[in-house]
Amino acid sequence: MKAARFYGPGDVRVEDIPEPEAKAGQLKVKIAWNGICGSDLHAYLTKVPQYATSDTINPVTGEKAPVTLGHEFSGTVVGLGEGVDANHWKVGQNVVIEPLVSCQKHSTCAACAVGTRNLCPLAAFIGVGGWGGGLSEYIAVDTRYVHILPDGVPLEIGAMIEPLAVAYYSVKRSGFTKGQTALIVGGGPIGLFILKVLRSIDASNMVIVSEPASGRRELASKHGATMVLNPLETLIDGKPSATALGAAVYDATKGVGVDVAFDAAGIQAGLDAALLSLRPRGTLVNVAIWEKDPISISMNLITGRELNVTGIMAYTGVHPELIEAVAAGKIRNLEELITRKISIDDVVEKGILSLLKDKDSQVKILVHP
Amino acid sequence: MKAARFYGPGDVRVEDIPEPEAKAGQLKVKIAWNGICGSDLHAYLTKVPQYATSDTINPVTGEKAPVTLGHEFSGTVVGLGEGVDANHWKVGQNVVIEPLVSCQKHSTCAACAVGTRNLCPLAAFIGVGGWGGGLSEYIAVDTRYVHILPDGVPLEIGAMIEPLAVAYYSVKRSGFTKGQTALIVGGGPIGLFILKVLRSIDASNMVIVSEPASGRRELASKHGATMVLNPLETLIDGKPSATALGAAVYDATKGVGVDVAFDAAGIQAGLDAALLSLRPRGTLVNVAIWEKDPISISMNLITGRELNVTGIMAYTGVHPELIEAVAAGKIRNLEELITRKISIDDVVEKGILSLLKDKDSQVKILVHP
Repeated sequence: MKAARFYGPGDVRVEDIPEPEAKAGQLKVKIAWNGICGSDLHAYLTKVPQYATSDTINPVTGEKAPVTLGHEFSGTVVGLGEGVDANHWKVGQNVVIEPLVSCQKHSTCAACAVGTRNLCPLAAFIGVGGWGGGLSEYIAVDTRYVHILPDGVPLEIGAMIEPLAVAYYSVKRSGFTKGQTALIVGGGPIGLFILKVLRSIDASNMVIVSEPASGRRELASKHGATMVLNPLETLIDGKPSATALGAAVYDATKGVGVDVAFDAAGIQAGLDAALLSLRPRGTLVNVAIWEKDPISISMNLITGRELNVTGIMAYTGVHPELIEAVAAGKIRNLEELITRKISIDDVVEKGILSLLKDKDSQVKILVHP
Repeated sequence: MKAARFYGPGDVRVEDIPEPEAKAGQLKVKIAWNGICGSDLHAYLTKVPQYATSDTINPVTGEKAPVTLGHEFSGTVVGLGEGVDANHWKVGQNVVIEPLVSCQKHSTCAACAVGTRNLCPLAAFIGVGGWGGGLSEYIAVDTRYVHILPDGVPLEIGAMIEPLAVAYYSVKRSGFTKGQTALIVGGGPIGLFILKVLRSIDASNMVIVSEPASGRRELASKHGATMVLNPLETLIDGKPSATALGAAVYDATKGVGVDVAFDAAGIQAGLDAALLSLRPRGTLVNVAIWEKDPISISMNLITGRELNVTGIMAYTGVHPELIEAVAAGKIRNLEELITRKISIDDVVEKGILSLLKDKDSQVKILVHP
């Protein structure tokens, strides 16, 4: 079967590899759609932890590069391995894969023992660290990582559940509740998904999106942002200024500041602006991977306003309620965030490279194997 | 009357000034004891926000330097101003002053309106920004800033309620509960007070104190630290290392990490060690004023472990319950942290300068006017 294989930064190859078969406890899934993730782009540009390398064996998957790429995917069950509960799982079911895997050694791993698998020191991802991936025709996967996609939810939307889970989890951890206000720094896929989740909780309160790309600002407005700000146009002395952006948010919230800010950009100026935008005791949730780290932060600002600064690591335990919310139409019009559908042969040129070059017009590119 | 007046960094003078009289709504208090605060030391060395300057009028107190110094103090009521409730307030009562003052414009100040006076943008302190201070013989003060000291609690302990309130509030905001573990970075007065508050909640669980001064480590052990660490002796390649300190805390907590860390030092290496000491989803509470700010922090560490980083600004609303806890003996042996008692004439030499020079043997110096 065809598979896009990750050899290392700058090296993704579409190759023929053997079709996997479902082992005991596994399902064989024919993959329908796989979204290209921002992390995949990072990994294409530079070495990113958790992405397979050719010199180290991943302790959970037991594999090293090359591995099949793709961790945002949906598909249809085509086979059941030995011992799989045939009352629950059936050939023909549409499914979503939750790709986060962890050591699952409950006796020694505090994180796995209490269900916070995402904080397991060995946490890895299918399609990143081995065990196959979404950029291939088939995958064999343990049932524990599979969720049934309810009737009426298209497989394209199924492929967006994984990044949506990151957004959903970030909102949950932020403590955001109806009636609160928010700032989202970065209007890429995760920023826009956060916007949609916030809107599913509060349809009308102030949600501001800061994003330099005009196409993404337009999408943010369309999907419910009360106000969009271009951080390149909030100026002090003619120069883009985090302080000016913070001041604009304070103005927009009548001098109160936002309750919650999400950093979905991972750059210093964005974080600075987010902190300056928060009300006293407001919460910043970082959702971004920081290429430049450590970063600079004012402890006196955090302390003087009693801000809370935290971050989220992927997700844990939210897939069932999220899928239910999507099926119930609480989070909707997700298909409008799919800006292109391509075939696996084009994954590098029209997928990865296109997303890297064409930030303004692309949001989510789905790949059909 | 005698008063120690703050003219600016490096300039504190004991002078004769007119004795204040209680105006309407005020009490006249004869001051018994005043503790010298770490912030006073900062302000003696360098310009610290909130400390009066000779060129700016404080918008709440309406005063500029010189102002009477001292904000940790107790005393005895000697007179009631017009309109003061004589059923509640009586001459001869021992009292504690809560020196934090704010704009109190509830219609325009969100912080004051919801009772978080400490987050008022104009928050100031008696003894720092005007309205008299504890380093004088008398003060006239609005009843709203006064708490009755119960019988049986000595006036010396009364003078420690203010810094103890900072510690009490920091523990409250940290979410620390019985059964949890903690690290305190910095064994100065605030660090030791935090230790005592933690011990009043959990008498036996792991509380680690990191402090370079041996005298303070001894005090920490005496007052309930399970383990004391010298950050100058947790080495990697022969050099003090935050990573090594974090590893020592992880070892001490059997590889789990502490639930809560308090930064009562305000230096980069201490913060680094504190963050590395926390369990996943652990909380860091900064209690220190940072002279060097902004600081450096790893967002990928905060995010990968879903840590919470916050800070506290003085205190709000905790004085009544704290005074009750002290009166009930839940927080006790505080007098052992008083390392010297001096007269107001010696406040610079034997007070401020002594504390700056002699960190190892001094903790709390009380001044009698």
